Amino acid sequence: MKKFMISAVMALSCLTAMAQEVIKLPAPDKSVAGMSVMEALSKRQSVRSFTSQALTDSQLSLLLWAANGVNREDGRLTAPTAMNRQDIQVYVCRADGAFLYDAKAHALTRVSKEDVRAYVAGDRQPFAKEAPVSLLVVSDQRKFGPRPSPDYGRLDAGYVSQNIYLAATAMGLGTVARAMMDREQLAKALNLVDAQLLLLNHPVGYVKSE
Amino acid sequence: MKKFMISAVMALSCLTAMAQEVIKLPAPDKSVAGMSVMEALSKRQSVRSFTSQALTDSQLSLLLWAANGVNREDGRLTAPTAMNRQDIQVYVCRADGAFLYDAKAHALTRVSKEDVRAYVAGDRQPFAKEAPVSLLVVSDQRKFGPRPSPDYGRLDAGYVSQNIYLAATAMGLGTVARAMMDREQLAKALNLVDAQLLLLNHPVGYVKSE
Repeated sequence: MKKFMISAVMALSCLTAMAQEVIKLPAPDKSVAGMSVMEALSKRQSVRSFTSQALTDSQLSLLLWAANGVNREDGRLTAPTAMNRQDIQVYVCRADGAFLYDAKAHALTRVSKEDVRAYVAGDRQPFAKEAPVSLLVVSDQRKFGPRPSPDYGRLDAGYVSQNIYLAATAMGLGTVARAMMDREQLAKALNLVDAQLLLLNHPVGYVKSE
Repeated sequence: MKKFMISAVMALSCLTAMAQEVIKLPAPDKSVAGMSVMEALSKRQSVRSFTSQALTDSQLSLLLWAANGVNREDGRLTAPTAMNRQDIQVYVCRADGAFLYDAKAHALTRVSKEDVRAYVAGDRQPFAKEAPVSLLVVSDQRKFGPRPSPDYGRLDAGYVSQNIYLAATAMGLGTVARAMMDREQLAKALNLVDAQLLLLNHPVGYVKSE
């Protein structure tokens, strides 16, 4: 019993330590990416070949803010959601682990110390694990209260995904939206609950010239 | 029988005349909207109050190109779709009727002479019919062949909807994505088949100051 108590306490401490590891991101510097909306739309395409060059914290900051960051004082976001339920969550997967983007605090909260990019890539598209960062677009159906709506979740995910495409383009990076991934392994590694729908992933990085 | 034949021939001629009414749009002039991606994301919001001032053909041209136009020589689009099925169709509803946007030809094909904006607005949000233009975002499930996917259709719709938000913002216009509309009346007026899912609508116009 004592042994069990000690294990339980240790497990709890670990979880707490994990939950407390928060990385504050630098403020997004929008001035470094001046490309117009129209030019970004002209250049938007899906990229499937990346170098392993890491993104800087500043790049990640701007990319995440663009994807689903706060753009108004009342906490509203760059991407709309059905009935403003703000159900979309963005997870960041890198070599050093996985993190949940907290838009309000503009910070990352660690959810895993594991490199889960192979789960993001899945078996059939190994190119996806070469990118230094993969973003996961998740709809947290709990935000819809007693009436969950995967249909609204999917609509909402598309907005964030297009933000990622356009921001990456404006920042000189490449990306592709993918529905393929090892959902079971990812859910386990990131401690997702069933109500968190893993809808899309986005490897992001510098484009590798063929 | 002769009467029936005449009616049938007349109906066919009407349909043919209707099907043939194609309005070529001016080439999209991307230089008139120079706002950066990041500024448009900073300013993106849902607008629910419009003046009745019409959009010019040039404005409509740029808006539609941005929403779901061709951005590459191989016919690919500003918005991605699952497995590049290009299932999203954009319909334009104005006082003078309703039109289907043909991205490849960058033209409008008339589908109705009726002003269907009241059906777009529905009973409960009359503001939506004040806007000079409402765009409808439809997923044509026939594009998925024998395996239709409303789930992919919804994801795909979100991309186009965010393009409309960002382009409208860059062009000094306002819009809001709405799932509410009188689907039955719209499907009838636009001659939609069951496989064409009416997912979202976007009133677009100049913002009315309160």
